[in-house]
Amino acid sequence: MVESPKQLAQESPSANNFNNNSEELDNKSADSIIITTETIPKPPYEIHKVCLPPYTTTVRKLKHRLFEIFFSDDPLSIFRNHSFCRKVDLGVRCVFPVFQWLPSYNFKLFGSDLISGITIASLAIPQGINYASLANLPPKIGLYSSFVPPLIYSVLGSSRHLAVGPTSSASLVMAMMLSQMVSFINEPVLHLKLTFTATFFAGLFQASLGLFRLGFILDFLSKATLTGFMAGVSIIVSLQQLKGLLGMTHFTNQMQVVPVLTSVFRHRQEWSAKIFIMGIIFLVLLLTAKQISKKKPKLFWISAAAPLISVVVSTLLVFLLKSKFEDVPKIGWLQKGLNPPSSNMLYFKHGPYLSLAIETGIVTGILSLTEGIAVGRTFASQQNYQIDGNKEMIAIGVMNIVGSCCSCFVTTGTFSRSAVNYNAGAKTAFSNVVMALAVLVTLLFLMPLFHYTPNVTLAAIIIAAVVGLVDYKTVINLWKLDKLDFLACWCSFLGVLFISVQIGLAIAVGVSVFKIILHVTRPNTVVLGNIPGTHIYQSLHRYENTTRVSSFLILSIESPIFFANSTYLQERILRWVREEEERIIEDTEERLKCVILDMTAVTAIDGSGIDIISELREKLEKKALQFVLVNPLGNVMETLQCSKVLDLFQFKGLYLTVEEAVADISSYWEHSIP
Amino acid sequence: MVESPKQLAQESPSANNFNNNSEELDNKSADSIIITTETIPKPPYEIHKVCLPPYTTTVRKLKHRLFEIFFSDDPLSIFRNHSFCRKVDLGVRCVFPVFQWLPSYNFKLFGSDLISGITIASLAIPQGINYASLANLPPKIGLYSSFVPPLIYSVLGSSRHLAVGPTSSASLVMAMMLSQMVSFINEPVLHLKLTFTATFFAGLFQASLGLFRLGFILDFLSKATLTGFMAGVSIIVSLQQLKGLLGMTHFTNQMQVVPVLTSVFRHRQEWSAKIFIMGIIFLVLLLTAKQISKKKPKLFWISAAAPLISVVVSTLLVFLLKSKFEDVPKIGWLQKGLNPPSSNMLYFKHGPYLSLAIETGIVTGILSLTEGIAVGRTFASQQNYQIDGNKEMIAIGVMNIVGSCCSCFVTTGTFSRSAVNYNAGAKTAFSNVVMALAVLVTLLFLMPLFHYTPNVTLAAIIIAAVVGLVDYKTVINLWKLDKLDFLACWCSFLGVLFISVQIGLAIAVGVSVFKIILHVTRPNTVVLGNIPGTHIYQSLHRYENTTRVSSFLILSIESPIFFANSTYLQERILRWVREEEERIIEDTEERLKCVILDMTAVTAIDGSGIDIISELREKLEKKALQFVLVNPLGNVMETLQCSKVLDLFQFKGLYLTVEEAVADISSYWEHSIP
Repeated sequence: MVESPKQLAQESPSANNFNNNSEELDNKSADSIIITTETIPKPPYEIHKVCLPPYTTTVRKLKHRLFEIFFSDDPLSIFRNHSFCRKVDLGVRCVFPVFQWLPSYNFKLFGSDLISGITIASLAIPQGINYASLANLPPKIGLYSSFVPPLIYSVLGSSRHLAVGPTSSASLVMAMMLSQMVSFINEPVLHLKLTFTATFFAGLFQASLGLFRLGFILDFLSKATLTGFMAGVSIIVSLQQLKGLLGMTHFTNQMQVVPVLTSVFRHRQEWSAKIFIMGIIFLVLLLTAKQISKKKPKLFWISAAAPLISVVVSTLLVFLLKSKFEDVPKIGWLQKGLNPPSSNMLYFKHGPYLSLAIETGIVTGILSLTEGIAVGRTFASQQNYQIDGNKEMIAIGVMNIVGSCCSCFVTTGTFSRSAVNYNAGAKTAFSNVVMALAVLVTLLFLMPLFHYTPNVTLAAIIIAAVVGLVDYKTVINLWKLDKLDFLACWCSFLGVLFISVQIGLAIAVGVSVFKIILHVTRPNTVVLGNIPGTHIYQSLHRYENTTRVSSFLILSIESPIFFANSTYLQERILRWVREEEERIIEDTEERLKCVILDMTAVTAIDGSGIDIISELREKLEKKALQFVLVNPLGNVMETLQCSKVLDLFQFKGLYLTVEEAVADISSYWEHSIP
Repeated sequence: MVESPKQLAQESPSANNFNNNSEELDNKSADSIIITTETIPKPPYEIHKVCLPPYTTTVRKLKHRLFEIFFSDDPLSIFRNHSFCRKVDLGVRCVFPVFQWLPSYNFKLFGSDLISGITIASLAIPQGINYASLANLPPKIGLYSSFVPPLIYSVLGSSRHLAVGPTSSASLVMAMMLSQMVSFINEPVLHLKLTFTATFFAGLFQASLGLFRLGFILDFLSKATLTGFMAGVSIIVSLQQLKGLLGMTHFTNQMQVVPVLTSVFRHRQEWSAKIFIMGIIFLVLLLTAKQISKKKPKLFWISAAAPLISVVVSTLLVFLLKSKFEDVPKIGWLQKGLNPPSSNMLYFKHGPYLSLAIETGIVTGILSLTEGIAVGRTFASQQNYQIDGNKEMIAIGVMNIVGSCCSCFVTTGTFSRSAVNYNAGAKTAFSNVVMALAVLVTLLFLMPLFHYTPNVTLAAIIIAAVVGLVDYKTVINLWKLDKLDFLACWCSFLGVLFISVQIGLAIAVGVSVFKIILHVTRPNTVVLGNIPGTHIYQSLHRYENTTRVSSFLILSIESPIFFANSTYLQERILRWVREEEERIIEDTEERLKCVILDMTAVTAIDGSGIDIISELREKLEKKALQFVLVNPLGNVMETLQCSKVLDLFQFKGLYLTVEEAVADISSYWEHSIP
């Protein structure tokens, strides 16, 4: 039973005594000014009741909740209030983002996309060959993978800067997983079949994630995580380029810093000063071009054209001075021909091979999807546009499903290629089409032209592209804003550098989730005071012009009350009461009579939270303290109502505002004293 | 740059037009009543500034944060303002909780503890033998483990009902892990050495967790989780008693429902009707005794004495009718003698055995600690007292460290024994001392007396104890309060029943954490309206007497703004704006001019949150909408300040209350219109 204010007031010193006290206190220093209940402005209107939200059934609540989770963007809203034709038009644009930019496509945009498309095409060829060999596949598969998937992506993808192709991490993981059961040397055809099958399942998995609207899972990649991830991958990718930059022939298949550097220094007899100097010259030229474009935005074309010019110049150089550059590693001779169909090579026979292919598909699917979406979001946030995670997943998934039928292996938006694409000034997904066409032309006719392109130029282009993406300014900002975000960023960075891309990301997501948990586990509790002459109650600690209200302790909890913090909150609130009582004894003030809990910032409550509310009530009642709740939010109010805890508070225990609670309770005290 | 209200006002229809509109609207149905800015009560005082919290250094903030995490209970507060002697006294009481209850210990408490202590002692002997055999150890080790550890716990432990001894799950896991490298048949001495060493490391790990004050980790065991866990373990423990109840000799070592039932039915030729009937009679008597005590609290001693009486009666029965009960399984002959020291048997030589022992110790340590604390918290919450997690961890840890030197293996607070202890009316940890003394006397002299105790009686006592702990009322309550808690409860229950104790707990903790994350990922956003004639702004949906304020959209976000919800929140807020604009066009109301974001319930913000605030500002500015923040909390304000986002809001963009924001902005509009 709640103790009525009447009882409490009778136990307290008389009202006269109390008023005398307040006059004395007015003469004290500003630091310890308190307002007595006399000076509080009385509300000129009635005391408002706290309402329950309108009743809804459990099923409707669940429906609303699920809608908010899966369709929070209200994807069908664009179709409302339109004619049928317009709806069809909008639907087509929605399913095929290509129709969003194609109608307004102009020659200027085409110019930018052409340059960037040709630039990334010049990267696609050596990268394709390189990653195919990482995945234990014939080199041509790598080239095929840079032809069909970019075409699909340009139609379905919503990112403007993502350049599509195979990635090192997915290639490596695929090789590792398939080699557990199949040798690519002894059974090359079976190995190839399983590769295509794994690619098919990777695509199926990715597309289903998108279709079931699970794109929100990717929200857990925070900006902090992405910054660290980007910096880590930049360094990893740069280190991979040491092979080309130093003209080495032996190089490790591993990705982490330590094995790569170990391998580079172990084979230092392979280092070539001539190639290194050539690489450094190109690197310096590329970085200078970038700086010029940065300082004078009108000269943007300098940095955009620089990579392609480098490729042409270096190829000509090597071609013209054949004899002097004989020992420089070049892209070399490549077989001509287009993607053959491979749908007949998909392996669906029940057995261990199929389950291996499915497993490999899911792992590489997750891996490449994470990289693709992370890269896409990164560039989107740099240019302030939104990427629809679900659409991206479907686009990447369909790209891989189709790819698996056209002799391609797992592809996604790759970091190095997208960085070059972005730097070369790509404006729309058309740069992917240009790249695909360039690869097509190359596959059919131009193979001999790349014969003389030195690998070192490509290495310099990649390094120049990724080096600018170590975003130290954001890192400094993170340190200022949030130490735990800073930690997440470093975890992601160091994890990528020293363990692996996926583990680095997993650690960073873990730290980010831990941060949320920690915020809930140890929430802020604040003592409120009144700004004299107003109805405003604010933190005593923060607002100097606030004053304590005599006989009241007003606490605000800034967090949901969950099992994870209920024990802490109970202890913390009791400690506030204890400390307030000690302070009152020290300052010989009016004794504490009422504890008000402002629940405005308590956004949810669970069973443990309900328990501590009723336990607190009991414990405070034993101390002859009234316990009052103020402004529980809608769902908190519902839970309180369900649990019957509200019955305990019926009588003068629930108010809409702190002001009304203080005014009503103190007027009750006054009236009940003769 | 923020668009000034002046500019906005000039773009909007003229004030006259606006006032005419409002008069028309006053005649509309109550459903669509809106208040115009004219009718809003003007504050009679100045507009208040939003302050930053007083400046503190990063180091001090970190210190405060760490203090709240590790010393939130302010453990040294009890020592303040006391003389040195009193401090020493309090310190001793704090380190040894035995001194908290010993001074006020009286004969009545002793009576209860004596009965419960002897009752659990009668359980300890068969359990000790049983669990030692589970752990591939000689039976006497099991008995030794019920002598020394309870004595240590009674001095250090803060639970009043926890009865200490070996547990089935830790025993099983220990046997499984050690048998990977050592055969207990071929190398019994090495196996015993490693068992003691693992016990030592389990204790060391447990005590360190407590010393480093990581007890808050156990807060993640919510009430929902514990209810499910308790129900699951009750059923598992009951099923284990089928061996005794049916008089079986063959029984599986596994714990889950399916293998236990399979094993029971496979060996159904071993079932004995005589034993089963005897067991059922005792079970019915025990349950009846319990019901009597429940209905008439004065007859509490009936249920308290029932188990011991059952043991005595059944032992006498079997002793007197030896010939008829020859085939009934009994506890049988046991070797006499006390715990020999075993510190010389601890194995610290560097090598694979040591790392195996450490690993086994950590795993069994976590397992037994979880069970011990979960059981302790369960009984504490039933009797409304608090358990200090850190102290419990140290107590259980020290108990195992000492135990490992006295021929004991891993012990903890066990579920079945504590349930019997609680039911037999234990009042303090002294029941553990009684149990230890009873085991001591038994070990030295009374072994022959237990010779004739039939196992079936013990089985009936355990089932009667645990069956009342399936708390279906709480489960029903959870369904009403929170569907996700209900799910966590069932996960924990089914996980324990069908997988294992630790996995069941892990799943339940996972679901609980997921719940917190989900709450943050999809937070509530609420449209606020004014209660006419007051300064109160509340949910339009929830409070029928609230009305929209014309030209304003007032939104309240009920969650911290983190990376996990920033994308969602931005989309959601823009959707609110879009829907409001559509509604306004439909109702031909005054056009929207200002969006107010009430941040009272936004308890934290991170870098992604900051980004969406500035992105929202930009996007709304493009729509010629003013964007205003109201009442950011202390740490949110600090982060906003750090990130320089506040600079964008300097001019009429930050208010302390919604009331002041509305009044100030609308008066600005009025004044800037001629």
